[in-house]
Amino acid sequence: MPDDSLLHFEDMPPGTTFPLGPKHVTADEIIAFAMEYDAQPMHLDAEAGRQSILGGLAASGWHSCAMMMRMMTDSYLLRTAAEGAPGVDYVKWKKPVLAGDVLSGETRVLDSRVSQSRPGIGIVSLRHELRNQKGDTVLESENPVMIRLRDPGSTNA
Amino acid sequence: MPDDSLLHFEDMPPGTTFPLGPKHVTADEIIAFAMEYDAQPMHLDAEAGRQSILGGLAASGWHSCAMMMRMMTDSYLLRTAAEGAPGVDYVKWKKPVLAGDVLSGETRVLDSRVSQSRPGIGIVSLRHELRNQKGDTVLESENPVMIRLRDPGSTNA
Repeated sequence: MPDDSLLHFEDMPPGTTFPLGPKHVTADEIIAFAMEYDAQPMHLDAEAGRQSILGGLAASGWHSCAMMMRMMTDSYLLRTAAEGAPGVDYVKWKKPVLAGDVLSGETRVLDSRVSQSRPGIGIVSLRHELRNQKGDTVLESENPVMIRLRDPGSTNA
Repeated sequence: MPDDSLLHFEDMPPGTTFPLGPKHVTADEIIAFAMEYDAQPMHLDAEAGRQSILGGLAASGWHSCAMMMRMMTDSYLLRTAAEGAPGVDYVKWKKPVLAGDVLSGETRVLDSRVSQSRPGIGIVSLRHELRNQKGDTVLESENPVMIRLRDPGSTNA
Protein backbone atom coordinates (compact mmCIF):
# COMPACT_ATOMS: atom_id res chain seq x y z
CA MET A 1 0.00 0.00 0.00
CA PRO A 2 1.32 3.48 -0.81
CA ASP A 3 2.22 5.64 2.16
CA ASP A 4 -0.22 8.55 2.03
CA SER A 5 2.21 10.79 3.90
CA LEU A 6 4.62 10.66 0.93
CA LEU A 7 4.52 12.63 -2.30
CA HIS A 8 4.12 10.26 -5.24
CA PHE A 9 4.54 10.70 -8.99
CA GLU A 10 0.93 11.84 -9.34
CA ASP A 11 1.60 14.69 -6.88
CA MET A 12 4.34 16.26 -9.02
CA PRO A 13 2.91 17.36 -12.37
CA PRO A 14 4.93 19.68 -14.62
CA GLY A 15 5.08 23.18 -13.17
CA THR A 16 5.23 22.00 -9.56
CA THR A 17 7.92 23.96 -7.68
CA PHE A 18 9.69 23.40 -4.38
CA PRO A 19 11.78 26.06 -2.59
CA LEU A 20 15.47 25.40 -1.88
CA GLY A 21 17.39 26.95 1.01
CA PRO A 22 18.26 29.38 2.41
CA LYS A 23 21.67 27.86 3.14
CA HIS A 24 24.49 29.87 4.72
CA VAL A 25 27.85 28.68 3.35
CA THR A 26 30.72 28.85 5.85
CA ALA A 27 34.47 28.86 5.26
CA ASP A 28 34.82 25.88 7.60
CA GLU A 29 32.54 23.63 5.57
CA ILE A 30 34.10 24.73 2.26
CA ILE A 31 37.50 23.73 3.62
CA ALA A 32 36.24 20.48 5.20
CA PHE A 33 34.69 19.29 1.94
CA ALA A 34 37.79 20.29 -0.02
CA MET A 35 40.14 18.42 2.31
CA GLU A 36 38.10 15.26 1.78
CA TYR A 37 37.28 15.51 -1.93
CA ASP A 38 38.83 18.45 -3.81
CA ALA A 39 42.03 19.81 -2.25
CA GLN A 40 42.72 22.49 -4.86
CA PRO A 41 44.21 25.66 -3.31
CA MET A 42 41.24 27.95 -4.12
CA HIS A 43 38.96 25.66 -2.07
CA LEU A 44 41.32 25.50 0.94
CA ASP A 45 42.83 28.92 1.40
CA ALA A 46 41.34 32.43 1.25
CA GLU A 47 44.47 34.04 -0.20
CA ALA A 48 44.83 31.36 -2.88
CA GLY A 49 41.15 31.89 -3.69
CA ARG A 50 41.63 35.65 -4.05
CA GLN A 51 44.53 35.07 -6.44
CA SER A 52 42.49 32.62 -8.55
CA ILE A 53 39.86 33.57 -11.11
CA LEU A 54 37.24 32.60 -8.48
CA GLY A 55 38.07 35.71 -6.43
CA GLY A 56 37.92 34.27 -2.92
CA LEU A 57 37.64 31.10 -0.83
CA ALA A 58 35.27 29.20 -3.12
CA ALA A 59 33.34 25.97 -2.65
CA SER A 60 34.27 23.03 -4.86
CA GLY A 61 31.67 22.75 -7.60
CA TRP A 62 30.86 19.27 -6.33
CA HIS A 63 30.36 20.73 -2.86
CA SER A 64 27.82 23.15 -4.33
CA CYS A 65 26.06 20.14 -5.88
CA ALA A 66 26.10 18.32 -2.54
CA MET A 67 24.68 21.41 -0.77
CA MET A 68 21.96 21.58 -3.44
CA MET A 69 21.14 17.93 -2.75
CA ARG A 70 20.85 18.69 0.95
CA MET A 71 18.45 21.54 0.17
CA MET A 72 16.44 19.17 -2.05
CA THR A 73 16.18 16.50 0.65
CA ASP A 74 15.20 19.11 3.26
CA SER A 75 12.59 20.65 0.97
CA TYR A 76 10.86 17.64 -0.60
CA LEU A 77 12.87 14.49 -1.33
CA LEU A 78 12.68 12.99 2.15
CA ARG A 79 8.88 13.17 1.96
CA THR A 80 8.79 11.82 -1.60
CA ALA A 81 8.52 8.17 -2.71
CA ALA A 82 11.81 8.61 -4.59
CA GLU A 83 13.86 5.71 -5.95
CA GLY A 84 17.01 7.54 -6.97
CA ALA A 85 18.18 9.07 -10.21
CA PRO A 86 19.91 7.67 -13.30
CA GLY A 87 22.13 10.71 -13.64
CA VAL A 88 22.38 14.43 -14.26
CA ASP A 89 21.66 16.11 -17.59
CA TYR A 90 24.03 19.01 -16.89
CA VAL A 91 25.41 21.24 -14.15
CA LYS A 92 26.40 24.87 -14.77
CA TRP A 93 28.59 26.46 -12.12
CA LYS A 94 27.74 29.98 -13.26
CA LYS A 95 29.38 32.00 -10.49
CA PRO A 96 31.70 31.07 -7.62
CA VAL A 97 30.06 30.06 -4.32
CA LEU A 98 32.10 31.98 -1.77
CA ALA A 99 32.45 31.72 2.01
CA GLY A 100 29.66 33.80 3.57
CA ASP A 101 27.24 33.38 0.67
CA VAL A 102 23.59 32.60 1.39
CA LEU A 103 22.07 30.31 -1.26
CA SER A 104 18.43 29.87 -2.13
CA GLY A 105 16.38 28.90 -5.15
CA GLU A 106 13.94 26.31 -6.32
CA THR A 107 13.33 23.00 -8.07
CA ARG A 108 10.72 23.00 -10.85
CA VAL A 109 9.19 19.91 -12.45
CA LEU A 110 9.73 20.33 -16.21
CA ASP A 111 8.22 17.08 -17.42
CA SER A 112 6.87 13.79 -16.10
CA ARG A 113 6.24 10.39 -17.64
CA VAL A 114 5.56 6.83 -16.55
CA SER A 115 8.55 4.52 -16.97
CA GLN A 116 8.18 2.00 -19.77
CA SER A 117 10.79 -0.36 -18.30
CA ARG A 118 10.16 -0.17 -14.53
CA PRO A 119 6.65 -1.08 -13.37
CA GLY A 120 5.18 1.32 -10.85
CA ILE A 121 7.81 3.99 -11.44
CA GLY A 122 7.43 7.44 -12.96
CA ILE A 123 10.23 9.76 -14.03
CA VAL A 124 10.12 13.49 -13.34
CA SER A 125 12.57 15.85 -15.05
CA LEU A 126 13.66 18.44 -12.50
CA ARG A 127 15.31 21.80 -13.04
CA HIS A 128 17.23 23.24 -10.09
CA GLU A 129 18.51 26.79 -9.69
CA LEU A 130 20.45 28.36 -6.82
CA ARG A 131 21.12 32.07 -6.38
CA ASN A 132 23.32 33.94 -3.91
CA GLN A 133 22.32 36.83 -1.62
CA LYS A 134 22.97 39.31 -4.46
CA GLY A 135 20.50 37.51 -6.72
CA ASP A 136 23.20 36.10 -9.01
CA THR A 137 22.50 32.60 -10.26
CA VAL A 138 25.40 30.42 -9.08
CA LEU A 139 24.22 26.95 -10.09
CA GLU A 140 21.80 25.50 -12.63
CA SER A 141 21.16 21.81 -13.18
CA GLU A 142 18.60 19.42 -14.59
CA ASN A 143 18.17 15.78 -13.75
CA PRO A 144 15.57 13.02 -13.94
CA VAL A 145 14.38 11.39 -10.69
CA MET A 146 12.46 8.12 -10.35
CA ILE A 147 9.30 8.36 -8.21
CA ARG A 148 6.92 5.56 -7.28
CA LEU A 149 3.37 5.84 -8.59
CA ARG A 150 0.64 5.98 -5.97
CA ASP A 151 -1.71 4.07 -8.25
CA PRO A 152 0.18 2.24 -11.00
CA GLY A 153 -3.01 0.82 -12.53
CA SER A 154 -4.85 4.03 -13.29
CA THR A 155 -1.88 6.14 -14.34
CA ASN A 156 -0.52 3.52 -16.69
CA ALA A 157 -3.83 3.19 -18.49
CA MET B 1 56.60 32.58 -14.92
CA PRO B 2 54.95 29.18 -15.34
CA ASP B 3 55.80 26.57 -12.71
CA ASP B 4 57.62 23.83 -14.60
CA SER B 5 56.53 21.24 -12.04
CA LEU B 6 52.88 21.68 -13.10
CA LEU B 7 51.07 20.19 -16.06
CA HIS B 8 49.85 22.97 -18.34
CA PHE B 9 47.39 23.05 -21.23
CA GLU B 10 50.14 22.13 -23.70
CA ASP B 11 50.84 18.92 -21.73
CA MET B 12 47.30 17.56 -22.15
CA PRO B 13 46.57 17.01 -25.85
CA PRO B 14 43.53 14.95 -26.89
CA GLY B 15 44.05 11.28 -26.11
CA THR B 16 46.01 11.92 -22.90
CA THR B 17 44.76 9.59 -20.14
CA PHE B 18 45.15 9.61 -16.39
CA PRO B 19 44.32 6.63 -14.13
CA LEU B 20 41.67 7.02 -11.39
CA GLY B 21 41.65 4.97 -8.18
CA PRO B 22 41.60 2.35 -6.90
CA LYS B 23 39.26 3.60 -4.19
CA HIS B 24 37.72 1.25 -1.59
CA VAL B 25 34.23 2.48 -0.67
CA THR B 26 33.24 1.84 2.96
CA ALA B 27 29.81 1.75 4.57
CA ASP B 28 30.96 4.34 7.10
CA GLU B 29 31.81 6.94 4.48
CA ILE B 30 28.62 6.27 2.51
CA ILE B 31 26.60 6.93 5.66
CA ALA B 32 28.68 9.96 6.70
CA PHE B 33 28.19 11.67 3.34
CA ALA B 34 24.48 10.82 3.33
CA MET B 35 23.93 12.25 6.81
CA GLU B 36 25.45 15.54 5.70
CA TYR B 37 24.04 15.86 2.17
CA ASP B 38 21.58 13.15 1.08
CA ALA B 39 19.76 11.44 3.94
CA GLN B 40 17.58 9.14 1.84
CA PRO B 41 17.09 5.71 3.47
CA MET B 42 19.00 3.69 0.84
CA HIS B 43 22.12 5.77 1.55
CA LEU B 44 21.87 5.41 5.35
CA ASP B 45 20.73 1.87 6.10
CA ALA B 46 21.71 -1.51 4.63
CA GLU B 47 18.24 -3.02 4.97
CA ALA B 48 16.57 -0.01 3.37
CA GLY B 49 19.13 -0.25 0.57
CA ARG B 50 18.36 -3.94 0.00
CA GLN B 51 14.66 -3.16 -0.23
CA SER B 52 15.26 -0.35 -2.75
CA ILE B 53 15.98 -0.80 -6.45
CA LEU B 54 19.65 -0.12 -5.63
CA GLY B 55 19.97 -3.51 -3.94
CA GLY B 56 22.14 -2.58 -0.96
CA LEU B 57 23.67 0.26 1.04
CA ALA B 58 24.43 2.57 -1.87
CA ALA B 59 26.44 5.79 -2.11
CA SER B 60 24.57 8.96 -2.98
CA GLY B 61 25.20 9.74 -6.64
CA TRP B 62 26.72 13.04 -5.55
CA HIS B 63 29.03 11.13 -3.21
CA SER B 64 30.19 9.05 -6.17
CA CYS B 65 30.92 12.31 -8.00
CA ALA B 66 32.83 13.64 -4.98
CA MET B 67 34.86 10.40 -4.78
CA MET B 68 35.61 10.73 -8.50
CA MET B 69 36.83 14.29 -7.88
CA ARG B 70 39.13 13.02 -5.12
CA MET B 71 40.54 10.41 -7.50
CA MET B 72 41.06 13.16 -10.11
CA THR B 73 42.90 15.43 -7.66
CA ASP B 74 45.07 12.52 -6.46
CA SER B 75 45.88 11.45 -10.01
CA TYR B 76 46.55 14.71 -11.84
CA LEU B 77 44.62 17.84 -10.87
CA LEU B 78 46.79 18.85 -7.91
CA ARG B 79 49.82 18.88 -10.21
CA THR B 80 47.97 20.71 -12.99
CA ALA B 81 47.73 24.49 -13.53
CA ALA B 82 43.94 24.17 -13.29
CA GLU B 83 41.61 27.16 -12.84
CA GLY B 84 38.34 25.35 -12.16
CA ALA B 85 35.50 24.23 -14.37
CA PRO B 86 32.40 25.99 -15.73
CA GLY B 87 30.24 22.91 -15.19
CA VAL B 88 29.53 19.31 -16.08
CA ASP B 89 28.18 18.17 -19.46
CA TYR B 90 26.48 15.09 -17.96
CA VAL B 91 26.77 12.43 -15.27
CA LYS B 92 25.44 8.90 -15.73
CA TRP B 93 25.05 6.85 -12.56
CA LYS B 94 24.96 3.56 -14.48
CA LYS B 95 25.07 1.09 -11.57
CA PRO B 96 24.79 1.52 -7.81
CA VAL B 97 28.04 2.11 -5.90
CA LEU B 98 27.69 -0.23 -2.92
CA ALA B 99 29.54 -0.54 0.38
CA GLY B 100 32.62 -2.69 -0.21
CA ASP B 101 33.03 -1.75 -3.87
CA VAL B 102 36.47 -0.92 -5.21
CA LEU B 103 36.34 1.77 -7.90
CA SER B 104 38.90 2.49 -10.59
CA GLY B 105 38.92 3.98 -14.05
CA GLU B 106 40.43 6.83 -16.00
CA THR B 107 40.10 10.36 -17.31
CA ARG B 108 40.68 10.87 -21.03
CA VAL B 109 41.20 14.21 -22.76
CA LEU B 110 38.65 14.32 -25.59
CA ASP B 111 39.36 17.77 -26.95
CA SER B 112 41.36 20.90 -26.18
CA ARG B 113 41.14 24.50 -27.31
CA VAL B 114 42.49 27.89 -26.31
CA SER B 115 39.88 30.11 -24.65
CA GLN B 116 38.74 33.02 -26.79
CA SER B 117 37.52 35.03 -23.79
CA ARG B 118 40.12 34.34 -21.09
CA PRO B 119 43.72 35.24 -21.96
CA GLY B 120 46.25 32.57 -21.07
CA ILE B 121 43.60 29.89 -20.47
CA GLY B 122 42.92 26.70 -22.41
CA ILE B 123 39.90 24.44 -22.04
CA VAL B 124 40.23 20.66 -22.06
CA SER B 125 37.15 18.46 -22.42
CA LEU B 126 37.55 15.48 -20.10
CA ARG B 127 35.72 12.17 -20.09
CA HIS B 128 35.73 10.24 -16.81
CA GLU B 129 34.73 6.62 -16.27
CA LEU B 130 34.67 4.57 -13.06
CA ARG B 131 34.19 0.81 -12.86
CA ASN B 132 33.67 -1.49 -9.87
CA GLN B 133 35.65 -4.62 -8.98
CA LYS B 134 33.44 -6.70 -11.30
CA GLY B 135 34.29 -4.50 -14.26
CA ASP B 136 30.84 -2.90 -14.42
CA THR B 137 30.85 0.77 -15.33
CA VAL B 138 29.22 2.62 -12.43
CA LEU B 139 29.79 6.26 -13.44
CA GLU B 140 30.44 8.16 -16.65
CA SER B 141 30.82 11.91 -16.94
CA GLU B 142 32.26 14.60 -19.17
CA ASN B 143 33.24 18.10 -18.23
CA PRO B 144 35.40 20.97 -19.42
CA VAL B 145 38.27 22.17 -17.22
CA MET B 146 40.19 25.44 -17.55
CA ILE B 147 43.99 25.05 -17.60
CA ARG B 148 46.61 27.79 -17.78
CA LEU B 149 48.81 27.86 -20.87
CA ARG B 150 52.52 27.47 -20.28
CA ASP B 151 53.28 29.78 -23.18
CA PRO B 152 50.25 31.92 -24.12
CA GLY B 153 52.11 33.69 -26.93
CA SER B 154 53.07 30.72 -29.03
CA THR B 155 49.90 28.68 -28.55
CA ASN B 156 47.60 31.58 -29.29
CA ALA B 157 49.30 32.28 -32.59
